[in-house]
Amino acid sequence: MAEQSPGFYRYKVGSLVVTTVLDGSSARANPTQGFVLNADSAAVRSAILDAGLSPASLDNPYNVTVVQTGRQTILFDAGTGGQLNPAVNRIPANMAAAGLDPAQVDIVAITHFHPDHISGLTSAANAALFPKAEIVVPAAEWAWWTTEGNVPRTPEAQRGVFANTRRRFGPYAGRLRMLADGAEVAPGIRLVAAHGHTPGHSAYHVTDGNQALYVMGDCSSRPELFLRYADWYSVVDVDGPMASASRKRLFGRAADERARVVGFHFPFPANGYVARDGGGFRFVPTEWSSAV
Amino acid sequence: MAEQSPGFYRYKVGSLVVTTVLDGSSARANPTQGFVLNADSAAVRSAILDAGLSPASLDNPYNVTVVQTGRQTILFDAGTGGQLNPAVNRIPANMAAAGLDPAQVDIVAITHFHPDHISGLTSAANAALFPKAEIVVPAAEWAWWTTEGNVPRTPEAQRGVFANTRRRFGPYAGRLRMLADGAEVAPGIRLVAAHGHTPGHSAYHVTDGNQALYVMGDCSSRPELFLRYADWYSVVDVDGPMASASRKRLFGRAADERARVVGFHFPFPANGYVARDGGGFRFVPTEWSSAV
Repeated sequence: MAEQSPGFYRYKVGSLVVTTVLDGSSARANPTQGFVLNADSAAVRSAILDAGLSPASLDNPYNVTVVQTGRQTILFDAGTGGQLNPAVNRIPANMAAAGLDPAQVDIVAITHFHPDHISGLTSAANAALFPKAEIVVPAAEWAWWTTEGNVPRTPEAQRGVFANTRRRFGPYAGRLRMLADGAEVAPGIRLVAAHGHTPGHSAYHVTDGNQALYVMGDCSSRPELFLRYADWYSVVDVDGPMASASRKRLFGRAADERARVVGFHFPFPANGYVARDGGGFRFVPTEWSSAV
Repeated sequence: MAEQSPGFYRYKVGSLVVTTVLDGSSARANPTQGFVLNADSAAVRSAILDAGLSPASLDNPYNVTVVQTGRQTILFDAGTGGQLNPAVNRIPANMAAAGLDPAQVDIVAITHFHPDHISGLTSAANAALFPKAEIVVPAAEWAWWTTEGNVPRTPEAQRGVFANTRRRFGPYAGRLRMLADGAEVAPGIRLVAAHGHTPGHSAYHVTDGNQALYVMGDCSSRPELFLRYADWYSVVDVDGPMASASRKRLFGRAADERARVVGFHFPFPANGYVARDGGGFRFVPTEWSSAV
């Protein structure tokens, strides 16, 4: 009876139609303890309180982004597929509400291989959920997670990514494309290396005319922490200092170019603009517009 | 083809179901000039830039709020009725998307009589748009705008409100109810005087169990200006210093009670929480929740 409005938000980048789609939100208990690795608990607590958030439990939203070029429909990251957390399973319903059909997706471009980004490629029974899509991945990410010798060089908590990589990409064999830094996904859309969060983590630069969007993936998770304090890195970053350096480079570029950004773990609708602020960045969420 | 998601957002206050509905958004050109009356242009410009907004044009969103108690449906402010600005006409579509029918509204509670709050009571032909609703108004507001002798005591730009008051409430004759400060709209819902923006401007305090919401009307327009700098008042405040005093009293109460607030001109979804910050307040927008 009392339904929430559907979790999608639409905007344009030049003539491209972009839709950010909410998968859902999980909660991180005690985010002041062991989450940020290079800041003490009091500093993290203070940043959380300063943003009006709760130091007892921090929301972790999940958002994917769809770009419709007129010729192709391109999905950035596949989400959880509802297989990681019962509260994070909204992509099918929210895509449908937005008039987007997984069967019509031409390309799924992946930022990195963490399970909340690739598990939605396939069902629990491991059937391809994007039946006609080509899957585009950063070549460096593919190389890391498909090389057995990297297992001991990977944080223990993330070693499951190797098996999940085999599992989720398996059904797409023969329609995988590896992209190097700067390579084109489709006209006007290029991969931008942003390594650190994972060894091959990459963002995507989407441009049309004089407008641009950076699909940032996990260059930063919640902006109140990792943009405001851009030096911070977290327990889920494979290489924290490198993640921070990539973050500063990419968001600095977006700030200087006045480009729009969308972050996978930013609060829905997850897109807006950034400005340099001290050593970090201020995130300015988009003004909700009824017109696309 | 590329439709925006509907502009409504639902949340609960105890067992009450609350839906904030976007009417649309207009633009104020040159908000640094003549808008804030008691701050110089440079200070206003700095506040706008600091919030990541544009000093060339400031969005002015319009949001109404519906409370469903299980027994009654209560609408707070009627919006523009699409009669003030062609871009601000979304209440019918957004209410419909939210499953809300104007014909089922039992009470329309009005914060004040500015045209963007009452014009939506009636159509362009002045037919009642809420056919079965009782209309609840602050007694002090009614007294001001229905007393001819107040015309010369009212800022010239606002004198049209007298005629629009007669016009918009006319079709509801016999089902108007005047409320004094503290009086009950419905069980758990009371008027709270917050004079200044207009002579009888009032908020509404909506409570159930241990949760509460303040429907703030125009106690503050954009939070980046008038909550951050709570002493400021604007060209649309009939009595600026009184508006500022009421604002500080009401938002101070909401901050101390950790009550939710919703502001008519806050950026959609227009609700969240406030914390005292220096001499003003920090507004913390709600975290978007897919569950109601």
